[in-house]
Amino acid sequence: MASLTCSAEQLAQFLGANTTNPTAAAAYLCDQFSTISNKFTDTAYAIDTTYLLFSAYLVFSMQLGFAMLCAGSVRAKNTMNIMLTNVLDAAAGGLFYYLFGFAFAFGAPSNGFIGRHFFGLKDVPTQTFDYSSFLYQWAFAIAAAGITSGSIAERTQFVAYLIYSSFLTGFVYPVVSNWFWSSDGWASASNTGNLLFGSGVIDFAGSGVVHMVGGIAGLWGALIEGPRIGRFDSSGRSVALRGHSASLVVLGTFLLWFGWYGFNPGSFTKILSPYNSGSYYGQWSAVGRTAVTTTLAGCTAALTTLFSKRILSGHWNVTDVCNGLLGGFAAITAGCSVVEPWAAIICGFVAAVVLISCNKLAEKLKFDDPLEAAQLHGGCGAWGIIFTALFATEKYVNEVYPKVPNKPNRPYGLFMGGGGKLLAAHVIQILVIVGWVSATMGPLFYALHKLKLLRISAEDEMAGMDMTRHGGFAYIYHEDDELQKAGIQLRKIEPRATTPTSN
Amino acid sequence: MASLTCSAEQLAQFLGANTTNPTAAAAYLCDQFSTISNKFTDTAYAIDTTYLLFSAYLVFSMQLGFAMLCAGSVRAKNTMNIMLTNVLDAAAGGLFYYLFGFAFAFGAPSNGFIGRHFFGLKDVPTQTFDYSSFLYQWAFAIAAAGITSGSIAERTQFVAYLIYSSFLTGFVYPVVSNWFWSSDGWASASNTGNLLFGSGVIDFAGSGVVHMVGGIAGLWGALIEGPRIGRFDSSGRSVALRGHSASLVVLGTFLLWFGWYGFNPGSFTKILSPYNSGSYYGQWSAVGRTAVTTTLAGCTAALTTLFSKRILSGHWNVTDVCNGLLGGFAAITAGCSVVEPWAAIICGFVAAVVLISCNKLAEKLKFDDPLEAAQLHGGCGAWGIIFTALFATEKYVNEVYPKVPNKPNRPYGLFMGGGGKLLAAHVIQILVIVGWVSATMGPLFYALHKLKLLRISAEDEMAGMDMTRHGGFAYIYHEDDELQKAGIQLRKIEPRATTPTSN
Amino acid sequence: MASLTCSAEQLAQFLGANTTNPTAAAAYLCDQFSTISNKFTDTAYAIDTTYLLFSAYLVFSMQLGFAMLCAGSVRAKNTMNIMLTNVLDAAAGGLFYYLFGFAFAFGAPSNGFIGRHFFGLKDVPTQTFDYSSFLYQWAFAIAAAGITSGSIAERTQFVAYLIYSSFLTGFVYPVVSNWFWSSDGWASASNTGNLLFGSGVIDFAGSGVVHMVGGIAGLWGALIEGPRIGRFDSSGRSVALRGHSASLVVLGTFLLWFGWYGFNPGSFTKILSPYNSGSYYGQWSAVGRTAVTTTLAGCTAALTTLFSKRILSGHWNVTDVCNGLLGGFAAITAGCSVVEPWAAIICGFVAAVVLISCNKLAEKLKFDDPLEAAQLHGGCGAWGIIFTALFATEKYVNEVYPKVPNKPNRPYGLFMGGGGKLLAAHVIQILVIVGWVSATMGPLFYALHKLKLLRISAEDEMAGMDMTRHGGFAYIYHEDDELQKAGIQLRKIEPRATTPTSN
Repeated sequence: MASLTCSAEQLAQFLGANTTNPTAAAAYLCDQFSTISNKFTDTAYAIDTTYLLFSAYLVFSMQLGFAMLCAGSVRAKNTMNIMLTNVLDAAAGGLFYYLFGFAFAFGAPSNGFIGRHFFGLKDVPTQTFDYSSFLYQWAFAIAAAGITSGSIAERTQFVAYLIYSSFLTGFVYPVVSNWFWSSDGWASASNTGNLLFGSGVIDFAGSGVVHMVGGIAGLWGALIEGPRIGRFDSSGRSVALRGHSASLVVLGTFLLWFGWYGFNPGSFTKILSPYNSGSYYGQWSAVGRTAVTTTLAGCTAALTTLFSKRILSGHWNVTDVCNGLLGGFAAITAGCSVVEPWAAIICGFVAAVVLISCNKLAEKLKFDDPLEAAQLHGGCGAWGIIFTALFATEKYVNEVYPKVPNKPNRPYGLFMGGGGKLLAAHVIQILVIVGWVSATMGPLFYALHKLKLLRISAEDEMAGMDMTRHGGFAYIYHEDDELQKAGIQLRKIEPRATTPTSN
Repeated sequence: MASLTCSAEQLAQFLGANTTNPTAAAAYLCDQFSTISNKFTDTAYAIDTTYLLFSAYLVFSMQLGFAMLCAGSVRAKNTMNIMLTNVLDAAAGGLFYYLFGFAFAFGAPSNGFIGRHFFGLKDVPTQTFDYSSFLYQWAFAIAAAGITSGSIAERTQFVAYLIYSSFLTGFVYPVVSNWFWSSDGWASASNTGNLLFGSGVIDFAGSGVVHMVGGIAGLWGALIEGPRIGRFDSSGRSVALRGHSASLVVLGTFLLWFGWYGFNPGSFTKILSPYNSGSYYGQWSAVGRTAVTTTLAGCTAALTTLFSKRILSGHWNVTDVCNGLLGGFAAITAGCSVVEPWAAIICGFVAAVVLISCNKLAEKLKFDDPLEAAQLHGGCGAWGIIFTALFATEKYVNEVYPKVPNKPNRPYGLFMGGGGKLLAAHVIQILVIVGWVSATMGPLFYALHKLKLLRISAEDEMAGMDMTRHGGFAYIYHEDDELQKAGIQLRKIEPRATTPTSN
Repeated sequence: MASLTCSAEQLAQFLGANTTNPTAAAAYLCDQFSTISNKFTDTAYAIDTTYLLFSAYLVFSMQLGFAMLCAGSVRAKNTMNIMLTNVLDAAAGGLFYYLFGFAFAFGAPSNGFIGRHFFGLKDVPTQTFDYSSFLYQWAFAIAAAGITSGSIAERTQFVAYLIYSSFLTGFVYPVVSNWFWSSDGWASASNTGNLLFGSGVIDFAGSGVVHMVGGIAGLWGALIEGPRIGRFDSSGRSVALRGHSASLVVLGTFLLWFGWYGFNPGSFTKILSPYNSGSYYGQWSAVGRTAVTTTLAGCTAALTTLFSKRILSGHWNVTDVCNGLLGGFAAITAGCSVVEPWAAIICGFVAAVVLISCNKLAEKLKFDDPLEAAQLHGGCGAWGIIFTALFATEKYVNEVYPKVPNKPNRPYGLFMGGGGKLLAAHVIQILVIVGWVSATMGPLFYALHKLKLLRISAEDEMAGMDMTRHGGFAYIYHEDDELQKAGIQLRKIEPRATTPTSN
């Protein structure tokens, strides 16, 4: 906020010697202004923290969305398994991100590769990072792990999940977020002293940092594991292994939509930043605009998918529409804050086409990802990064990102007349993320595979993991099971135990 | 907020000629006050936008509530169909409301019938409308469409849904919201230059504008389609076609309750408006009171329904209690901000009675609405409009609605001693909404009916729409289906494809 | 906030006689400061109310979480029953808490036992209590009732539920909250004039006031009813009666997690309270820290349960992990605002051990609580109270709780060097809650038992309450039921009614 500084010396001079006590008068007045200034500081922290915390809660609710989406998208016999991974993404992620993940990601000054500060939240809060910042970033970190668990669903050993998930949330993801989001990350658009191509990467809420990371990790996992039994028949034709509950899929999708309003607009982390103090236009408008671009991209992708799938498959498919919608969201996530609403419509339209194409390709290559997570988060995420480099507007880029010393303006979208520097930076981002995640997660999955720790046995896969590993089937709708029979028999044999007993 | 203006000229005169530089001293001080004033403006925009955006997110979550409520209330064979309509209400609504719906509703100056500004959000933001306003109003618009899709569930062609839903969200609803909510709407209580009966209509959050519109549209659709096969037996007796999941009904109901806190208290759109600056009582209190009246009306309606249904049907029925609860919410929506908490209890009690009566009447008339949407949103919505005209208090009406030039007070509730003007306006509102929606949606549904585009074939209805139109049944709990068998066979024939393969 | 007072008299003296009109100048300036001061007051109310209301909405969403958790944890045949109790906890609770619950709890001045003011929200709002305070406290009150209904699930008469639930929400719980939370409660840490052991009880968000109360009430109910038929076989061995849907359990758990961010951080009720005006560190930091301690306790408890249960039972169990997670939350609830994040990890670890031990003990004693509610909320709640007395830090206790007149510091955690006074107060709290709830709820449940109003008949228990009391089974996935057959027959007999009919 504009400063509110009062110079008592200056004011005393203006009042002058004829005033009875000009020094006291000036000090008196300046004290008031100082109190006011402090109150504005307090007020801004209270508002921004309220905004950030509730945004964090929304992002957290996406984990519930993932859990329901994943559960509904797998067969009933693996429901307990996939939901447990979703609960643990959040739980193990909480501990790891507290111990070192947050430090790796945002512990400036970094060594150029990884942060080295804030382990176990030491020295938090500071001027720039409060506990709420940690909570917000934690909710992001667990989302990446959630994406990957979808790709390798229904056939992965639980111990493999524990290993890759910890490695991804605790190390791979934090390093990427350090590079692109930390104030001294080598490719960060906030690193104003040393911007990549004079621009840095504009990946506002993480089409690359979150979605591509999760998607590429899932790609390697699913590739190394191979497809689920029965996913492609003996003649190589694709056989849909439909999820067990469309209701859970829709529930999960809507929850993700709901949570995305924390993910994208929330990434401003502050809402009380005037662009020109006293005007109705400020960061609060940019926050609202980001919610609008997010909405429009998802809506357009959903509608595009609806009609495309109607043409391609002959029916109106709600689960495909849900995935299309999410693809639109994954794509707009990079540029949501710096593009016009009309551009978001283009973003969503292309995202739907990208997702359908990636799915076609995956089928051709006999690649099996039960949640389409690699295609959706990897493919649409990559498109979103390119899209931003094409459609970012001059005005919004300069409002949303910090001023560069000695430069009037930042590079912006190629199609908006902003030149190719942003595009160059964004191509680098895609290559670096693919490279880094492949170089870390690929060998990890391969090692687990070689150690026979990755995939469950064919017998277990046919039977389902819930029966073999997780204590039973997730659902009991009809009670002609042994327990109940035991109850009935018991009732005949020993009436004392079957009638109500008081203590 | 009270203005904070500093006259440097005036202040310089007070300081006078003996002060060394009175002009500079005064300018110096007034600059400070000007900075402070600007900071307050920024702060207010940040707070109010935070309030409005999170309220919008809550209202959006109602769409998830509708989806779950609808899904649980229909038979399993139509789950995919109804959930797709709920996803599309939001998605198609997003695009249409962006392109022209918002402009029709709030693009002042209107031509007296419809707004003509803000198409594609052109010229947004302004002093009064920011992106967050659009997002909030979009979430309302899609609710109306959601109501209607419940009425005609389980028997409507998907193409008919696409047509009526676009027409309703894009045209019928925006026109109604223009009339009653836009600052220059002919019946708006904010149109202080030209108030209907010197009062205007107090439909604060839309018992009429949203609920009656959706309900009356559903009434015509359900009436023209006729009841579902089997809903009334050969001797004309009513046969309950129970929904397939009470858990989804309760889930949906609670989500709607949760979202209603965005719908009703959120309709203030601003929370930082003092009624008397410096006091603990201001718009923030009115916002809280609105949340309380909303809660009490719903709670009372739920309890009334519980005991009434126990007497009428002999059992304690949770889905009926859920509908009763929602009826209480639909009714209090009009007057939530201008009535006392005790009056909300009356509102809820009568709403439950209205809903039960409407349902009895519907059964008599062989009217079949699978969600009771016409009865609930139409019937209880209408009661809410009347209730407001009876119980609105003088104090709250004058606090919540803008002052009328040259008039000390606005008309208020008849039973509170405020005369009949508000009631007259509200009777007009009911007639106008019934007339307008009947005149637009009635012919549309009739045309679709005549073109054989409205209702599915009897064969499809018996089989369920999910199998015939949407790619399959929504649930697969037991895997003795062909796909799985194929998988087992495959395993025997071609072992290579069934064991884990690395790429 | 720091006061912003301007003495016109003082300022006029400073300006002095040579100023043309010193009195007018000073008054002019002081008027500006007065306006500013009022605007800060308004701003603070708007921010704090926004914070409190959205926190209240989050706490309310826990009721949905309870409903889904309970539904998923019982057998399918009792789903409608348990969900109805959850809806009614909220609905009946709304009415009772409005009429007298809130008055009993916070209607200061109390008579030392119970509050006597604010019946029907009379005289609300005041300087300290606005409508939003009521809404927030209501959401807490209904949580206590929700806990208890889990303990006695699947075998309790509905009329018994109506009676104990009203008594608990309307009387037992409000009295406890008066004692520990009201500004003049005899054991409240805010009762600075008369602190128990010079300290008062630090039960910030209610490990005792909410969780132990609900848990102990459930303990007596479940004890007096005795175990469900079949829960222990004829030779006394424990037989798991598994819930019918793990998906609902996970959904409910995540919703409770989501809502706990309203429960714990929200309990500050205000976020704009600087500890040292103008600094980045203030109550907003404490609010964020509370969200972090809450998260870490739950995460640690979840992981501890995961590995413990793997060792004890041989499988990775998601529903056990969910319960462990909730146990961690119930435990950290008392101390969440006054302990360091690292201590929260200890809290969560021990909470998981406590829950597992309580469950073992319950099995030994043939105590049957379908939701483990008595063990979880009672056992982990009690641990949380002790934990707080051991680990509360000096700094945080003095920041979060009001200054005691004539005392520099308040007692704090024993292990942190703060002496035993806090521990003494907390032991008293546990004893008093156990005593009070046992003395009220115990006799009530016993009387219901003696009057044959408590437990359903063995026949009804075997058949399930939904069929016998609530109008039917909660789910209909396959439509080979009579209604549908009736529809098909109808179609053959009377074609007119089966084809689409226009009105």
